[in-house]
Amino acid sequence: MKLYDNNQAPNPRRVRMVLAEKGIPDVEIVPIELGAGGNLTPEFCAKNPFGKVPVLELDDGFCLAETGAICRYLDERFDGGSLFGKTVEDRARIDMWDHRMELGLVISVAMGFQHLSGFFKDRMTPVEAWGKECVGNVLKILPILEKQLADNTWVAGSEFSIADITAICAIDFARVIKIRIGDEYPSIQRWHAAMKERPSYTA
Amino acid sequence: MKLYDNNQAPNPRRVRMVLAEKGIPDVEIVPIELGAGGNLTPEFCAKNPFGKVPVLELDDGFCLAETGAICRYLDERFDGGSLFGKTVEDRARIDMWDHRMELGLVISVAMGFQHLSGFFKDRMTPVEAWGKECVGNVLKILPILEKQLADNTWVAGSEFSIADITAICAIDFARVIKIRIGDEYPSIQRWHAAMKERPSYTA
Repeated sequence: MKLYDNNQAPNPRRVRMVLAEKGIPDVEIVPIELGAGGNLTPEFCAKNPFGKVPVLELDDGFCLAETGAICRYLDERFDGGSLFGKTVEDRARIDMWDHRMELGLVISVAMGFQHLSGFFKDRMTPVEAWGKECVGNVLKILPILEKQLADNTWVAGSEFSIADITAICAIDFARVIKIRIGDEYPSIQRWHAAMKERPSYTA
Repeated sequence: MKLYDNNQAPNPRRVRMVLAEKGIPDVEIVPIELGAGGNLTPEFCAKNPFGKVPVLELDDGFCLAETGAICRYLDERFDGGSLFGKTVEDRARIDMWDHRMELGLVISVAMGFQHLSGFFKDRMTPVEAWGKECVGNVLKILPILEKQLADNTWVAGSEFSIADITAICAIDFARVIKIRIGDEYPSIQRWHAAMKERPSYTA
């Protein structure tokens, strides 16, 4: 398998962390330079017409895009403990929190970055007022996450899961919009320290 | 089970269509008025701190939020043919297209509506320039969907799936941002006509 990757962006990191957590070997990493538009070339868009990384190219040539779909595929396809839960009820709870972290945090952080930095202004129109709203939306979610982590060891409950990976990739990337987890969030800090101890953290 | 629902919004419709496609009986529908802030009351936020519909309250009282998680739970929990695919590879392909329709279409249409109409201006700051960008983002995705449906019967391939449900709920709702599927999209029109023939369409 080949992973079309970028080591600055939050979504490819989610896939690399899943690879590390599951101990999946023999994945060729192909770096794609986003600033230079490496994701917009005809060659790349033939793999993913949406022009986004990550993309996982399977051994039969099929190109699997969308971070959530790649992570779930890797979890189902390989042994090494499930990151998505075992029972139907566990899977639903984890999936709910993973969606909340993706739709609430990852997207808000990424859009905040794109609209406040103008990093992709060669291909989109940054709207500063919207970037500020995105920062505000992140700040509305952190207290909900703080309460969840005050009541639970991990984001989705008592077991480490894909929701922790999605959340950490958003929260670490949030430094680009000047959001850091301060002392007002002791439970997120406790969880963040636990995440840092996992070998997958630096994947 | 109880479904906290709204019959104008696209996301609750995705759940109602899954209930209809699977033939799942005995779900109590509880309407939530979004314009009046019925999703922001302390009572509702105790069920979903993110203040969003739909929410599926299970018989043991657990409240499952996030449309994607609810649809997958219903699919796994009940018989009636899988909307998410059978083999690992089929599931990955369907999941990819479902994510593309959710992250690309549903969210762009919904944000376009919110930012251009000001419907929720009592609880958010509409940014008109961003609303226009969202409309543009929808218009960039439609040609990709047209090509996919020129090559395939359904959105994710040869089998009807959750990706069709996600896509139709976005496309039908897009009338609120004045996007309609014209003759430049013959394959989307063919697919849309096929969707209308399914009993779940009016769910």
